[in-house]
Amino acid sequence: MKTQREKMTAGEPYEQFDPELITRRKLIREKLLTVNQLDNNEQRNQKIKDLLADTGDDFFAEAGIEFDYGFNIHIGNHFYANYHLTLLDTCPITIGDHCYIGPDVGFYTPVHPLSAKLRDADVELGKPITVGNSVWMGGHVTILPGVTLGNRVVVGAGSVVTKSFEDDVVIAGNPARIIHHLDENGDVIPGD
Amino acid sequence: MKTQREKMTAGEPYEQFDPELITRRKLIREKLLTVNQLDNNEQRNQKIKDLLADTGDDFFAEAGIEFDYGFNIHIGNHFYANYHLTLLDTCPITIGDHCYIGPDVGFYTPVHPLSAKLRDADVELGKPITVGNSVWMGGHVTILPGVTLGNRVVVGAGSVVTKSFEDDVVIAGNPARIIHHLDENGDVIPGD
Amino acid sequence: MKTQREKMTAGEPYEQFDPELITRRKLIREKLLTVNQLDNNEQRNQKIKDLLADTGDDFFAEAGIEFDYGFNIHIGNHFYANYHLTLLDTCPITIGDHCYIGPDVGFYTPVHPLSAKLRDADVELGKPITVGNSVWMGGHVTILPGVTLGNRVVVGAGSVVTKSFEDDVVIAGNPARIIHHLDENGDVIPGD
Repeated sequence: MKTQREKMTAGEPYEQFDPELITRRKLIREKLLTVNQLDNNEQRNQKIKDLLADTGDDFFAEAGIEFDYGFNIHIGNHFYANYHLTLLDTCPITIGDHCYIGPDVGFYTPVHPLSAKLRDADVELGKPITVGNSVWMGGHVTILPGVTLGNRVVVGAGSVVTKSFEDDVVIAGNPARIIHHLDENGDVIPGD
Repeated sequence: MKTQREKMTAGEPYEQFDPELITRRKLIREKLLTVNQLDNNEQRNQKIKDLLADTGDDFFAEAGIEFDYGFNIHIGNHFYANYHLTLLDTCPITIGDHCYIGPDVGFYTPVHPLSAKLRDADVELGKPITVGNSVWMGGHVTILPGVTLGNRVVVGAGSVVTKSFEDDVVIAGNPARIIHHLDENGDVIPGD
Repeated sequence: MKTQREKMTAGEPYEQFDPELITRRKLIREKLLTVNQLDNNEQRNQKIKDLLADTGDDFFAEAGIEFDYGFNIHIGNHFYANYHLTLLDTCPITIGDHCYIGPDVGFYTPVHPLSAKLRDADVELGKPITVGNSVWMGGHVTILPGVTLGNRVVVGAGSVVTKSFEDDVVIAGNPARIIHHLDENGDVIPGD
């Protein structure tokens, strides 16, 4: 039989007041309040890495990072996130190598039902978020549950990404749409 | 004769450098800096409740909440707000029961004049914000002065809500528009 | 020969791991973590002013301000910024007199190449941001690299400003567009 943590991670309805999940959320909140006050970059980032499922070499997040559990966050090599990255990780958030994230970006995997009756009864579920390699996101970007972004995608600042996009595109807007296709050199393909 | 606090709360032009208002703003800033560093959820939330006009049972706000005065904030039962909720409460902000708020959401009641001459003279006014029961807002949502949202409204992440909406709708975008009507079960009404 | 700091400020490709730049970024992060915890408004704002290139009289920023270097930030008289202003100042950010900034606003001067190969090689450049006098920005506004805003511009909350705008306009949306022209009294010009 699945634990609530396993159900949550799989995107199925789960009991958010499960003792294991409450304990973990409290631990993370306590740790993050301390960690985000550390002014030594190496110390702060090592302590953040210790709370995440797996991270690669050359991990750097500026102060103000927030997440729910950490055990569903998987980040590749050469990662840089600017101030106040928020990762709501009820479901897995998987980020490839060489990604740059601007300030005040949010990755949100939790989904609440559209039915108020179900929300009032505290039903929660979620969908994973997956980001490829060499993705650059500007600041103030919002990534919704279930989104997959391909490799080398560029996400304009302030975008709200509501659906998935393939490799080698520049997207922007609310909702985000493709504004350019990129060739293998990263040049904009004419005619776009 | 009205005090500056009464004028402000009523949405009329008021003197922002009024001693009573300055004193209150300073008190709130001091309290919030301490409160937002408390890692004990019960302690932190009790101290936030003490600064607000009225709140119901089962109030939970993650760390990073910010507001101006507190005395114009009215929140019902079963409230949950994720990280870094910002409530600019020169005018009343009234939120019903069973509301869920995502991270980095802003409710802004202050209004500055479009005339630069008046702004340069520090003229400020405002409009109240009212939210019904069982409303769910995604993260990175912006609610503008004067907005009323009905019951069971769902606000998509990243929305900028510039006008009022009735019960039982899903809204999204910048500016937010209705993208679905919901029936009594919370199902999307076909044809939308 | 130009230093890396001079190249960066001029908007040319620069070496972000230059020792002078790393040292400055570390200093700023250390200072900001302390400064943003000060509950005395006068003390906090004086310490922020000390880190910026130049600021005028009557400077007030609420807690949570973040920037990279400070030496590229130039702000006029009578400045007010609400909570959590983020100024990424690889290139100059110049703000006139009598400007009001809402909460959670980001000014971003850094530019990364669209080519993933160049980004993976840590190539960075930037473009300056310039804001006139008596500009009012609502909360959750994003200002992109290279933007110039004229005098008396009003920027609606939640706007993403991707290009420059002249004097006396109200702009809003993602991307921001002109929604009103203003006359010399700040009244909306009919016909808009």
